[in-house]
Amino acid sequence: MLIRGLGEFGLIKRMTKQIRTDSTVLKGIGDDCAVIKWTKEKYLLFTTDTIIEGVDFKDKDDPYLIGRKALAITLSDIAACGGIPKYCLVSLALPERTKVEVCDRIYSGIKHLAGQYGINIVGGDISASKILTVNISLIGFVEKKRLVLRSGAKPGDVIFVTGGLGGSISGKHLAFDPRLKEARFLVKNFKINSMIDISDGLVQDLGHILDESKAGAVIYEDLIPINQQARGLQDALYSGEDFELLFTLSLKESKKLTCKNPYFIQIGHIAKKQSGFNLLTKSGRQKKLDIRGFRHF
Amino acid sequence: MLIRGLGEFGLIKRMTKQIRTDSTVLKGIGDDCAVIKWTKEKYLLFTTDTIIEGVDFKDKDDPYLIGRKALAITLSDIAACGGIPKYCLVSLALPERTKVEVCDRIYSGIKHLAGQYGINIVGGDISASKILTVNISLIGFVEKKRLVLRSGAKPGDVIFVTGGLGGSISGKHLAFDPRLKEARFLVKNFKINSMIDISDGLVQDLGHILDESKAGAVIYEDLIPINQQARGLQDALYSGEDFELLFTLSLKESKKLTCKNPYFIQIGHIAKKQSGFNLLTKSGRQKKLDIRGFRHF
Repeated sequence: MLIRGLGEFGLIKRMTKQIRTDSTVLKGIGDDCAVIKWTKEKYLLFTTDTIIEGVDFKDKDDPYLIGRKALAITLSDIAACGGIPKYCLVSLALPERTKVEVCDRIYSGIKHLAGQYGINIVGGDISASKILTVNISLIGFVEKKRLVLRSGAKPGDVIFVTGGLGGSISGKHLAFDPRLKEARFLVKNFKINSMIDISDGLVQDLGHILDESKAGAVIYEDLIPINQQARGLQDALYSGEDFELLFTLSLKESKKLTCKNPYFIQIGHIAKKQSGFNLLTKSGRQKKLDIRGFRHF
Repeated sequence: MLIRGLGEFGLIKRMTKQIRTDSTVLKGIGDDCAVIKWTKEKYLLFTTDTIIEGVDFKDKDDPYLIGRKALAITLSDIAACGGIPKYCLVSLALPERTKVEVCDRIYSGIKHLAGQYGINIVGGDISASKILTVNISLIGFVEKKRLVLRSGAKPGDVIFVTGGLGGSISGKHLAFDPRLKEARFLVKNFKINSMIDISDGLVQDLGHILDESKAGAVIYEDLIPINQQARGLQDALYSGEDFELLFTLSLKESKKLTCKNPYFIQIGHIAKKQSGFNLLTKSGRQKKLDIRGFRHF
C-alpha cells in the first residue's frame, strides 16, 4: 500500500501508535508543540516545521519570504500553546546551482523575524539537495498556569479566531504575522481552555480540537470572517495556511474578552460530542461538516 | 556567484556572521551542539541533522537503517559534547509513491535506537516531497562540569580517537553505534579538553578543533587506526561519516586513560598554532596537511 492510501493523518497515527514517553513529557505527539517539564514555574515547548519547494512555496517566490515563512510557521505553533519562543536551529537543504544571494535572502528573512521576537539562532545544518528545503526547530517556554493545549475545550465554550480566513494561498501564507502577541495577551488575561493555529483549514483544525477534547461544535456561517482574498465560504472553511489562532473559552470569560478587545472574532461554540460538528447556515439549517482540509497526501 | 563557489564552510561563515545571541546562550553556532543555560547544575544541548536521498543514503538502502542513521548522527553530536540525549522530533519528507511499509521501517529504525538510549520521541512533522528526507532535532543535557567543546584543546594535549577510520561509506555509515557510552565514560572519569565527532573526515574535523582552539597539531601516520573497509591512509584521513569521537586531554590525564582502557587510540598531540597542522610520516618526515574532507559543496 502507498502512503496516500492511508492519508497524512492515518500515516501519523500508524507510525506513532507504539511510542511511549517518560514522566518528564507532559504532552508528546499530537499537539502544536511537545510540552516537557522544565522548572518549577515553566514548561519547555519543542516544535519543528519543514517547508519544501513545490509544496509550501514556488521556486520563484522571494527567498526572503521563504526563510521568513519557515520560522513564522514554527512561531505559530509556540503561539498556539500560549508560549514564548527562545532558541532555534535552521536546517537548509540547497541545490548546488543556488546563488549565494538567494541564501543571503533566505537567512535575512529568518534573522529579521527572529530579531523581532528576541529569538536566538543557535545552530543548524546545511546539506546539498535537489530541492530547496528549510526546516526550523524551536525551543520556547510557557508558564505552567498559562499552557494551552488542544484538549481542553468544554461544551459551552465559545469559539474564537484571531482574523479573516481563506485565500491565504494567494500570498498571505508567505508574509503572515504569527499571532504571538495575541496569544500572550490571551493567556495572561483569560482562562483559555483550548487553542490551535489554523494551518490546514478551519474545519480540519477545529476537528483536531474536537478530537483531543472529545467534544462537538457548532459554527455559524454568518459569523465566519472571510478574508478579502478568499473566493468565498468554502475557502474560509477548508483552505490551508491562514495561521490565525482558533481558541475556546467559557461564556463568562468570553464576555470579558469581547468587552476588552473587539479584534477577536466569535464564530461558534463547543457542544457535546454526540451532537457532532455542524455549520449553522444563514438560512438557519444545521449542516453536518465533513472534516477535510489541506493534507500532504 | 553560486554557493559551490564559496563552499560549505564559506557559506556557513557568510550567513551566520551577523548573528548575535543573548546571555543565556553559552555556545551558539560553531560546535556539535548549541549549549544553553538551563538549571543550576546542567546545560541544555540542542542539535539537528538532516539526511537526504542521493546524498546521505541511496534509495535502495534499507529504510530501517536510514531512520536509524538519522537519529544516530544526531546522537553523535550530543556525545561530542559529553551529554545525554533526551527528547527528539522527527521530520519526514516523503514522496507520494512511498510504500507504507517503507515508512514503518524508517520509524522502526528510529524507535529502536531511541529506545536503546532512553530518548523520548515527542513530535515531528510529515510533508510531501520529491525526495525522501529525514530530519531529527534533539534536546539533551550535560552537567556543567562535564561539558566539552571544540575550543578547549591546549598545546601538549594528547589526541585520541575511539576507533578505526576510513571506509565508512562502504556500509558502516548506515549502522554505526554513536559513541554515547564512551563519551560519558570519558567525561565522568577524565578532564577532556576538547572533543568532536568525525563526520567529515579526521583532518577536516581535527581542523575544526584547531580553529576553535587556536592551536596546531601533529598526527602520526603509524598510529592512525585504519578501518578494515578503508582503501588506505587517504581514506582514514579524508573520508567522511566515521562518527568516531576525536578528543584531546593533557598528558597526565592521558596516562590515566591508557592504563584504564586500551580501546582509545592515541594518534598525535596538540601543538602551538604557529607550528601548523602536520603529519609525521612513517619515514619520519613532517608533512603539512591540507584541510579537506567531505563537503556538501
